[in-house]
Amino acid sequence: MTAVGIDAIEIWTGKLKLDLPNTFAEKKGEDPEKYTKGLGLENSSFPDVYEDIVTMGANAAKRLMDRKGLTPQDIGRIDVATESSFDNSKPVSTYIAGCLEQVYDGNFHHANKGERKFACVAGTQSIDDAYNWIKAGRNRGRSAIVVATDTALYERGDPGEATQGAGAVAMLISEEPSVVELSTEQGYGSADETDFLKPNQQFPSVDGKRSMQVYLARMREALEDFESVAGKTHPDDFAYIPFHTPFPGMVRKAGLLGYRHMIRDTDVEDELAAEIGRQPREAEFDNWDNYEEAVRAYMDDLKDTEQYRDWYGRVIDPALSLARQVGNWYTGSVHVARTSALKHAAETGRDFTGERLLVGSYGSGAQAEIHAETVREGWKEEIEQLNVDEKLENRYDLSFEEYELVHDVHDHEKETDVEEFTAPSGEFVFSGWGRMGERNYEYVE
Amino acid sequence: MTAVGIDAIEIWTGKLKLDLPNTFAEKKGEDPEKYTKGLGLENSSFPDVYEDIVTMGANAAKRLMDRKGLTPQDIGRIDVATESSFDNSKPVSTYIAGCLEQVYDGNFHHANKGERKFACVAGTQSIDDAYNWIKAGRNRGRSAIVVATDTALYERGDPGEATQGAGAVAMLISEEPSVVELSTEQGYGSADETDFLKPNQQFPSVDGKRSMQVYLARMREALEDFESVAGKTHPDDFAYIPFHTPFPGMVRKAGLLGYRHMIRDTDVEDELAAEIGRQPREAEFDNWDNYEEAVRAYMDDLKDTEQYRDWYGRVIDPALSLARQVGNWYTGSVHVARTSALKHAAETGRDFTGERLLVGSYGSGAQAEIHAETVREGWKEEIEQLNVDEKLENRYDLSFEEYELVHDVHDHEKETDVEEFTAPSGEFVFSGWGRMGERNYEYVE
Repeated sequence: MTAVGIDAIEIWTGKLKLDLPNTFAEKKGEDPEKYTKGLGLENSSFPDVYEDIVTMGANAAKRLMDRKGLTPQDIGRIDVATESSFDNSKPVSTYIAGCLEQVYDGNFHHANKGERKFACVAGTQSIDDAYNWIKAGRNRGRSAIVVATDTALYERGDPGEATQGAGAVAMLISEEPSVVELSTEQGYGSADETDFLKPNQQFPSVDGKRSMQVYLARMREALEDFESVAGKTHPDDFAYIPFHTPFPGMVRKAGLLGYRHMIRDTDVEDELAAEIGRQPREAEFDNWDNYEEAVRAYMDDLKDTEQYRDWYGRVIDPALSLARQVGNWYTGSVHVARTSALKHAAETGRDFTGERLLVGSYGSGAQAEIHAETVREGWKEEIEQLNVDEKLENRYDLSFEEYELVHDVHDHEKETDVEEFTAPSGEFVFSGWGRMGERNYEYVE
Repeated sequence: MTAVGIDAIEIWTGKLKLDLPNTFAEKKGEDPEKYTKGLGLENSSFPDVYEDIVTMGANAAKRLMDRKGLTPQDIGRIDVATESSFDNSKPVSTYIAGCLEQVYDGNFHHANKGERKFACVAGTQSIDDAYNWIKAGRNRGRSAIVVATDTALYERGDPGEATQGAGAVAMLISEEPSVVELSTEQGYGSADETDFLKPNQQFPSVDGKRSMQVYLARMREALEDFESVAGKTHPDDFAYIPFHTPFPGMVRKAGLLGYRHMIRDTDVEDELAAEIGRQPREAEFDNWDNYEEAVRAYMDDLKDTEQYRDWYGRVIDPALSLARQVGNWYTGSVHVARTSALKHAAETGRDFTGERLLVGSYGSGAQAEIHAETVREGWKEEIEQLNVDEKLENRYDLSFEEYELVHDVHDHEKETDVEEFTAPSGEFVFSGWGRMGERNYEYVE
């Protein structure tokens, strides 16, 4: 069977940055470590005044097409995942295709364009749609462009304000891909939850505590479902485990929970037993509360073992490096995490082809999805062509007052007139509103 | 290769109706034939005050599950297509699953839930996702529920007001389906168009004339793309051709255009030549305007030929019967059209297994999709179990003043306190708002 998966990845960050420990914490009169240690964040990305989900997505897609030498005829689908859409009918993918048609010969008229919404998990769902389309034999030799693009803003003063971010990830889904092959096996954990929602509003209503519980509960369910089709997982099975990263602190919790699950009834649990005992089993307890308390105590001990710390440092932490610099990109977040892991492998000279990743995606509302990926031979050439470090380095460093203006610029309910902070060059920009309320775009040389 | 397609269909209409030639035309002081002859519409469906896109979708899905004897464990996906969503993050499919979990044992926690948006074409895109998922070997023997649900409202006084409608179509997508098998071949015609959009607004901004041109242009492009993979089409190839039906008058134009395209260089064109001449060929004209004028003249003549009128009456018109009674259901519309055609076949005692449909879906913004379907042996038993006629018959007939209240009830920007017009029984109803602005639902025995 033909391998299908991710052939290329491009990341486009919003061109502005907010320094959390310095600019943000200072203004709030808070300990900078609340951000760097607690949440695990250094900076957030924001779009400049001429940027939005369309420009970021189109710019990432253009770089991907240029780098791979693609023409519109090579593309049979353009799927966009977002929860920052500005239209209730017309999909962002049509705007992105319209941008790309300004600069390429030919057009995307025979490509299926779509838009998916399910909080932060829709990017992974869109990759799956593209994978299934190819496996179903409907692609006519063409590839799919999947764009996960969001401007993740919270109401000013909301606790989530520190976890904002904005950017796009564009991925090419192809037969015989260069970066990773996706597993046919998938696990789902999905329930009707009220943890994070945007009822007819741009900024989310969030029950932060509930949202963290739901993330962990659905992720565990997805892992169990994945194991029911792919077989039992073991911590040594995977080179990296990129998770959806609303903020790195959340992934610390998910990593520990996943490790506990994976080591149960294995050599690792046996090895650790002398030091911290064996894991509590539900059957050994009279009631749930006592069991839960014993689990919490075991997890506290587990977290401090050398085995766990070593594993976390090798398998989880490398997937968090970009998130620390950009914040939460919603649909793009888990794909930023995968990219962080691949960059780490390239930068540490790892011989990596054939190794496996376990990828944990999540969207509030709520659904977790877990699948495996196998690294392909061309991964390193692809990853070495990323220019994300340079893009991050070049971001304009906002003062707090400038940040306030930028938040207003991207608030759909506000009309603003703010000067751009950076000069666009070789990219698509928002150029104004049309007569029916549509957004217009142009390419700036 | 296993056949994959539609195993069952259920239609749930909003429980109120507005009589267009009488109630609406009378109030406007207009000729009733503007609606019945011009647009081709008799009535529009509207949701009662306790109905919305979730209840209509969940009620259709429940009837589908009950009728097919399904449990939640039989379902691996719940995909919802809508352009009437009331949340920018949490998908309608989670609400629908939450409803269904109130009445069934077990849950949908291992089912992938999604939401797609692309004007009226997203229902067909969701069927495709489910088809591809099964063909990709990821379904583990399970089926997918696809729900196309919309409340299609226009601003009061907008020309589109006469084409409103509301309802849901639920379809079960399975291996070895009972109703129709879908073709692997698909044709797309897709471009970045500003014909109909909802920029951060519930009600659409529409360029009506442009929208009709774009419908026809994209549909022609999709047909040409379909023929490039499936071979040349001929009017006799298909028992019925259900089109997306914003109003039946639009389909009259599409049917004529499609017929002209399909008969070119065939026996039919030869037969008609004595009566109306051969079709104008672009190469025979000096300039585009003259060519276009000649095409228009040919179409005018073609429309009045006995051959065309007979074909239209057999192949196109039967797919419009439900639309005339319910208006435009956006994502559900083309699936209502397919159902109308299948009902016609059942009601006229047609021996129909193995015959083919050509299905033309469309969404503004814009994209047309064309694929073929082959009727399966169980089609008649399925279609005979539909209770849509009874549901239509039982709708509450609104006065104009009541219609005005109902429009306000479903306007997201208005707070209203309107008594229900009908009594819910054996169905899900909207039961009020939760603390985070979420909508709550309960089942009424």
